[in-house]
Amino acid sequence: MRFAKGHGTGNDFIIVPDLDDQLEFGAELVRRLCDRRTGLGGDGVLRVVRTAADGGHAAAAPWFMDYRNADGGAAEMCGNGIRVFARYLIDRGLAAGPEIAIGTRSGVRLVRRLADGTFCVDMGPATVRGTGAAVVAGRRCDGLVVWVGNPHLVCLVSEPVTDFSLSEPPQIDLAQFPDGANVELVEMVGDHALQMRVHERGSAETLSCGTGAVAAAVAAAHSTGEWPGRPAQWAVAVPGGRLTVTPGPATTQLTGPAVIVAEGIVDDAWLSGIVHSASARA
Amino acid sequence: MRFAKGHGTGNDFIIVPDLDDQLEFGAELVRRLCDRRTGLGGDGVLRVVRTAADGGHAAAAPWFMDYRNADGGAAEMCGNGIRVFARYLIDRGLAAGPEIAIGTRSGVRLVRRLADGTFCVDMGPATVRGTGAAVVAGRRCDGLVVWVGNPHLVCLVSEPVTDFSLSEPPQIDLAQFPDGANVELVEMVGDHALQMRVHERGSAETLSCGTGAVAAAVAAAHSTGEWPGRPAQWAVAVPGGRLTVTPGPATTQLTGPAVIVAEGIVDDAWLSGIVHSASARA
Repeated sequence: MRFAKGHGTGNDFIIVPDLDDQLEFGAELVRRLCDRRTGLGGDGVLRVVRTAADGGHAAAAPWFMDYRNADGGAAEMCGNGIRVFARYLIDRGLAAGPEIAIGTRSGVRLVRRLADGTFCVDMGPATVRGTGAAVVAGRRCDGLVVWVGNPHLVCLVSEPVTDFSLSEPPQIDLAQFPDGANVELVEMVGDHALQMRVHERGSAETLSCGTGAVAAAVAAAHSTGEWPGRPAQWAVAVPGGRLTVTPGPATTQLTGPAVIVAEGIVDDAWLSGIVHSASARA
Repeated sequence: MRFAKGHGTGNDFIIVPDLDDQLEFGAELVRRLCDRRTGLGGDGVLRVVRTAADGGHAAAAPWFMDYRNADGGAAEMCGNGIRVFARYLIDRGLAAGPEIAIGTRSGVRLVRRLADGTFCVDMGPATVRGTGAAVVAGRRCDGLVVWVGNPHLVCLVSEPVTDFSLSEPPQIDLAQFPDGANVELVEMVGDHALQMRVHERGSAETLSCGTGAVAAAVAAAHSTGEWPGRPAQWAVAVPGGRLTVTPGPATTQLTGPAVIVAEGIVDDAWLSGIVHSASARA
């Protein structure tokens, strides 16, 4: 089994080319691949599949991004992962670029390679859905609820975001967020410039979150009265790097780096141990 | 640059074959390779060098294990790493086995592949150097000081080792341990069977520590009156798997698994970015 490893602003992925959809790709294999000690290590797996191979939406997009979280579950979309996915396609000569249509579980997304080597993703519409509040290590933070295909509670704070502790999950109103929410702490640090930290639901604080950056820019634009009528570009600094977001009423553009670190082949003996243990358990 | 990734009881390594000692291999590159998000990820790097290449102890050992910690610093020996190193040599046809002499910064070590696929390492002498005490999350634990090329404070405890918190470093007497010490919490769970957790100095709790397992078995044998006169085999369960230790007056044998997960090639663009940034800083 071939693989590559890459990351976008510190959000890291195992890329598995399976162009003709031949691999048995269960949750156990994903969990083992993503284990940072006994596997390759990653926040998730991006399986690269030709849409023609599964009879899917081949007309709209030649490639399908089968994105799995480190826990093995299938997930819809990942703004950092899809840039790495696009870079992999172009680097390996699988797509010409600069614009690539990629199928995801959230529909087709357009990704464009820019002249400076970064990648711009059409993230689809974001919507503001009222207000909420989180308690972050004992401190109450008021926030805006933003939907970007997944739920976010964006708290604009006046203190430096580094002053907060995110080692424990922020407490949120579970009646309002029955499926949980990503919580962003966002400070305005300059003209259309944000500093953000994020606690991802079901996970922990992470180095970066693409949909979180989109939600942060939407909430910031909302606070300045620019949302949704006057789209402007926002610089969003996250612990793992820098992203740029242009929120608009119909769709939001997310731009950032995509890095390929290495590629190679998973060891047959290691792999057969997993297939064996998965079958034994089944 | 070629690489492999492997682990021994969850202690994981990037293996870099540099048979003829050609690579520029600075601390910056090691740190970047070991970064778990933006690099390949590992507890350390094992560079594989022919001893003939550096005019070193070629007569005693054909291979040198250039072991670096994730922080970039050169280190002496690693009981988990050297098993992975030996497996790499045999798997890649670089050594015939079953016994391989490997040069390390602590001298030459013999590693033998056993019939069951595990590897047995001659860890050299261990010595008991008196008693000490650690405070582990507010609880005082008395221990035995054991030297295995590095300092250990082994605390035999009567409670399950899972009852302790090692999220903070145990407090030790810095007058007694001016360079710090690894602290092991060890419970006797059966006849010559130990359960161990370890806090490695300068690091954190880890899934496994080869010299720590040796120290734990020596301390347990000391407590039963078997040390040093009556060598017996001890099973040491660590969070990352199982090790076997036979402490003796002249040397101690450490046996455990060695796993190769994958191999491949580090991306040229990623690598040149590091070489560039390292030169710019110099």
